[in-house]
Amino acid sequence: MSDTVKYVLAEDRIPKAWYNIAADLPQPPPPVLHPGTGQPVGPDDLAPLFPMALIGQEVSTEREIEIPGPVRDVYRLWRPTPLYRARGLERALETPAKIYYKYEGVSPAGSHKPNTSVAQAFYNKEEGTARLATETGAGQWGSALAFAGALFGLEIDVYMVRVSFEQKPYRKALMEAYGARCVASPSEETATGRAILAKDPTSTGSLGIAISEAVEVAAQNDDTKYSLGSVLNHVLLHQTVIGREAIEQMEIAGDYPDIVVGCTGGGSNFAGSVFPFLGRQLRDGQNVRIIAAEPAACPSLTRGRYAYDFGDTSHLTPLVKMHTLGSQFVPSGIHAGGLRYHGMSPMVSHLKELGLIEARAYRQGECFAAGVQFAKAEGIVPAPEPMHAVKAVIDEALVCKEEGVARTILFNLCGHGHFDMQAYTDYLAGTLVDEELADSVLAEGFAGLPPIAAQ
Amino acid sequence: MSDTVKYVLAEDRIPKAWYNIAADLPQPPPPVLHPGTGQPVGPDDLAPLFPMALIGQEVSTEREIEIPGPVRDVYRLWRPTPLYRARGLERALETPAKIYYKYEGVSPAGSHKPNTSVAQAFYNKEEGTARLATETGAGQWGSALAFAGALFGLEIDVYMVRVSFEQKPYRKALMEAYGARCVASPSEETATGRAILAKDPTSTGSLGIAISEAVEVAAQNDDTKYSLGSVLNHVLLHQTVIGREAIEQMEIAGDYPDIVVGCTGGGSNFAGSVFPFLGRQLRDGQNVRIIAAEPAACPSLTRGRYAYDFGDTSHLTPLVKMHTLGSQFVPSGIHAGGLRYHGMSPMVSHLKELGLIEARAYRQGECFAAGVQFAKAEGIVPAPEPMHAVKAVIDEALVCKEEGVARTILFNLCGHGHFDMQAYTDYLAGTLVDEELADSVLAEGFAGLPPIAAQ
Repeated sequence: MSDTVKYVLAEDRIPKAWYNIAADLPQPPPPVLHPGTGQPVGPDDLAPLFPMALIGQEVSTEREIEIPGPVRDVYRLWRPTPLYRARGLERALETPAKIYYKYEGVSPAGSHKPNTSVAQAFYNKEEGTARLATETGAGQWGSALAFAGALFGLEIDVYMVRVSFEQKPYRKALMEAYGARCVASPSEETATGRAILAKDPTSTGSLGIAISEAVEVAAQNDDTKYSLGSVLNHVLLHQTVIGREAIEQMEIAGDYPDIVVGCTGGGSNFAGSVFPFLGRQLRDGQNVRIIAAEPAACPSLTRGRYAYDFGDTSHLTPLVKMHTLGSQFVPSGIHAGGLRYHGMSPMVSHLKELGLIEARAYRQGECFAAGVQFAKAEGIVPAPEPMHAVKAVIDEALVCKEEGVARTILFNLCGHGHFDMQAYTDYLAGTLVDEELADSVLAEGFAGLPPIAAQ
Repeated sequence: MSDTVKYVLAEDRIPKAWYNIAADLPQPPPPVLHPGTGQPVGPDDLAPLFPMALIGQEVSTEREIEIPGPVRDVYRLWRPTPLYRARGLERALETPAKIYYKYEGVSPAGSHKPNTSVAQAFYNKEEGTARLATETGAGQWGSALAFAGALFGLEIDVYMVRVSFEQKPYRKALMEAYGARCVASPSEETATGRAILAKDPTSTGSLGIAISEAVEVAAQNDDTKYSLGSVLNHVLLHQTVIGREAIEQMEIAGDYPDIVVGCTGGGSNFAGSVFPFLGRQLRDGQNVRIIAAEPAACPSLTRGRYAYDFGDTSHLTPLVKMHTLGSQFVPSGIHAGGLRYHGMSPMVSHLKELGLIEARAYRQGECFAAGVQFAKAEGIVPAPEPMHAVKAVIDEALVCKEEGVARTILFNLCGHGHFDMQAYTDYLAGTLVDEELADSVLAEGFAGLPPIAAQ
């Protein structure tokens, strides 16, 4: 039987400001460098790619950044999102732990991604951008930006990694239903794409290549800007509505987390969930353990090198200091497409270096087992990405059981799995890749780091 | 730009009772008949298939039927659902009409179906049922019952129409993720299935065949009951939480609908949305136009015969008086799988005969055009079924524009389209079937009506 507990917030409790952790850091993260000069980049270097409002947010140290009214208006389509107590899962695990989860799958795109796509579309529209170019892997980000583009009247061009473009036509259909254009990458539309296709006409593409194509298009067209779905400070900032709402909801529950868990790919859903809690710790000493859960097939935080590296394959982006597997590293075809990025948000990497967060890597099979256990106990089918968080939560809850301690654990269920049923099909059929990386594979990736990485 | 208006209800406003329209009818619907005797069926006839609580609801004339606490507990996972003012669509249509929609796609199964699957699972568990057998077409109902079975600890066996089973493995994966068993129908597990396979080993199945298989399994196993996702009075009853919440939300909006629209297949989402409004009309004369929107490829309400007929292909069910295309009628493979039923809920049919509702049929192509227009304007991608309602709403809103009248229109967006992206792919590629039935096809269906249909 179910005894669901849902903590809802009234609509006027949608946060009025994003939380910027840069204001509370004990030391700032290393600067972003221009790849040509090796010097820190300035706003002018970024102006061809982003509107000034987002560049300002990228480098801001203001603690609170007001959310514009039209962005909050769109947030109201699905926000505030619910926070649940996972009583069914607690019972299934026979744990004394109290498990809570924030659920972002109620958004029209089915994930947390619209929290930033809507903001990015708004600021671009404000500054006269006609078109946004972006990349997408499995398609979550592309569809979230397509959704925002439809509402704000922007053209959206999505460069979708070719292997996903061919294997996952449904995300493309979703983007097109919203009126976006979705192109297989590498494409004939860019110099990057043409060069790669000239060398290898059958290239299946990669996220790094798709980023290069979108950046190139934005750099070369005055009316076009670039949009990224994770990694950058302003993207993480926009996601903090998740953690801010969660803090209020935990207050309603009369509880506060001992542990907060999120899955990490580029870092945005993780940051959005945990930064507001981390901010309290940094300001008020209200301590909380923070755990990042990542795939063993793409273990940037647990096995990557903390080094300056490019964000893309073709080296069109600035250099950022982050945990990286090397910009030429191509992870195996795990279903958690949103976590298949060679690097990590520089801000999340910095926090890891400061010892403020822990990280763990999990294999695909154990994540799916956790995801299915969650679905049966709680009734919500998670996407493959947040299954990593579910796995970490279950592990922690079992530690509580062993130790007989009733810790409070919170995690972000950042999306539903309704678009990922092929993954469930593969899992139930026992045909999942379940890879852990050999040192030699890692060494190959690190060999591709730029010389400046030695810094 | 967006100016979303969402009308939310506090969690304690989840209805405490379902609304039973039987209490307010000017005359009762014709009785359900035993196919052998031609006499009205009694509770004992139905006891092998349903728990007594549901049989009681099937024939009740009480206006209010209390929702059990454990059912409301599960409803709280996603209820109350939001009601939106469709400002974006109004603007796109340049209509003076005010358009509101209730959104049921926020449920864990993505549709309204869990409103009844949860109730049915609860009552069965209460009365000691170990297993539920059911049929499913495209899989929406099967996955909703699988979800409820997981939460209440019931085994769920789903007979899924073979053509869908093969074409739509994702719904099967969702059912299995919830722990249900999903079998292609016709199967070797039942006499019905074996007989059909003996005649035609390549049979692709039909909803009527799958119903026959599930009914047979329930009738022959003491620990197993049968569960149906639409058509029956108790199913419609459970869906009235939709309309009851909508009435409260319209009050918050300071408005009341002139027109309420729902799509119809078996009739349950339609009934759930409109019966509470119709009840007000019947009791208090608070008039509202009610429009049922159905597919031209399966036009039971607009072109069917109002006659006694079987609910299934193998004639294992009782005879019910309804608008029917004949139990041997097999609709073409339109994407709105939830609307591909040869008959109609007897209660909805009765209301049509009483002149209390109108019905319209739409072709697939025009429904998808309406659905895509809605997605771009409102940000939510509708399932193919509610696209029929969207089409009717747009037509009415354009009438308002022509006439310069600001009517208030409400409809139920009963599910999101995240599981239906193949349908969008086909539409965007221009490869949709867009059939209107020839009279000869209808005549063939009517020829299969039982002799008693002449009554």
